Amino acid sequence: MAIEAGDGELVTAGSGAAAPTTIRDASPADWPGIWSFMRSILAAGETYCWPVGSSEDDARAWWMSKPYGRVFVAVATGGEIIGTAEVHPNQPAQGSHVAGAGFMVSPAAAGCGVGRALAEHVIEAARADGYVAMQFNAVVETNAAAVALWKSLGFAVLATIPRAYQHPAFGLVGLHVMHRKL
Amino acid sequence: MAIEAGDGELVTAGSGAAAPTTIRDASPADWPGIWSFMRSILAAGETYCWPVGSSEDDARAWWMSKPYGRVFVAVATGGEIIGTAEVHPNQPAQGSHVAGAGFMVSPAAAGCGVGRALAEHVIEAARADGYVAMQFNAVVETNAAAVALWKSLGFAVLATIPRAYQHPAFGLVGLHVMHRKL
Repeated sequence: MAIEAGDGELVTAGSGAAAPTTIRDASPADWPGIWSFMRSILAAGETYCWPVGSSEDDARAWWMSKPYGRVFVAVATGGEIIGTAEVHPNQPAQGSHVAGAGFMVSPAAAGCGVGRALAEHVIEAARADGYVAMQFNAVVETNAAAVALWKSLGFAVLATIPRAYQHPAFGLVGLHVMHRKL
Repeated sequence: MAIEAGDGELVTAGSGAAAPTTIRDASPADWPGIWSFMRSILAAGETYCWPVGSSEDDARAWWMSKPYGRVFVAVATGGEIIGTAEVHPNQPAQGSHVAGAGFMVSPAAAGCGVGRALAEHVIEAARADGYVAMQFNAVVETNAAAVALWKSLGFAVLATIPRAYQHPAFGLVGLHVMHRKL
């Protein structure tokens, strides 16, 4: 899944050796670990607007090289990368004070609060970087875990673009525009 | 201005020598004519999320080279380019059946219905190209003429992202997400 809301458990990043997950800025060397789960998430075609057959290079450029973007990883105690997030200006220039962001969690780590920990870290980082709000342009409405997570973190659905996403199982479904102040 | 609603006059494209404006697909050779008015619209910084000091090359790539994009020009009887529009998939892949679009009209041609003629042409072209809806992600709410034009053409404001645009005169103003079926 592309993001999961966990079971309510809060995984705190950077709280010492006992913490199951550490969130940190990504480096280029993290890409293979990111791709190890991103490829299956993109191939499923259920959560992102992204060509399912596109190449690893395209995915890397898309995720890792957004203008003025910043990429994070969630790292398990064993060193395995189990989640990633990226934050970037949702619009350039006159709109660049509002962040956009994307999140993916390894299906193998689903239900452990990794998505929530990533989201809380990214929200704090975005605030520290000067963004005043965060906006998601295209949350697939059938991605219930993601929608629930964002709502629990203070995001509101400002609009649902009707029939804007071609879901492989459900056909044309809506895309939520979600937003919160930082 | 970036788009103008005209005075209600409908300029019909391609209706013969008497028509004041013809709308057609753009060619690379049209760029200097487009840039002649685009530069002042972008420099004003009131209607698009675009760095006001960016180069002509950047603007050309942004307007003329969107993935799967199509560019149009409005041409006066004397051959002068007085407006332009571009249409492209608002999202890739699973979202590519919804069009996004941008419009600019030369300030020298404001109030003559050029924006409306362009919009009607682009809506028809987008429908013919297979798009099922059109979405604008970021219509500056203070751009009253544009908002009125889109509403008159069947677009609805699905959401207004609060304080999402740094306007040089009005400060932080909202960005409308507007949408209509095709």
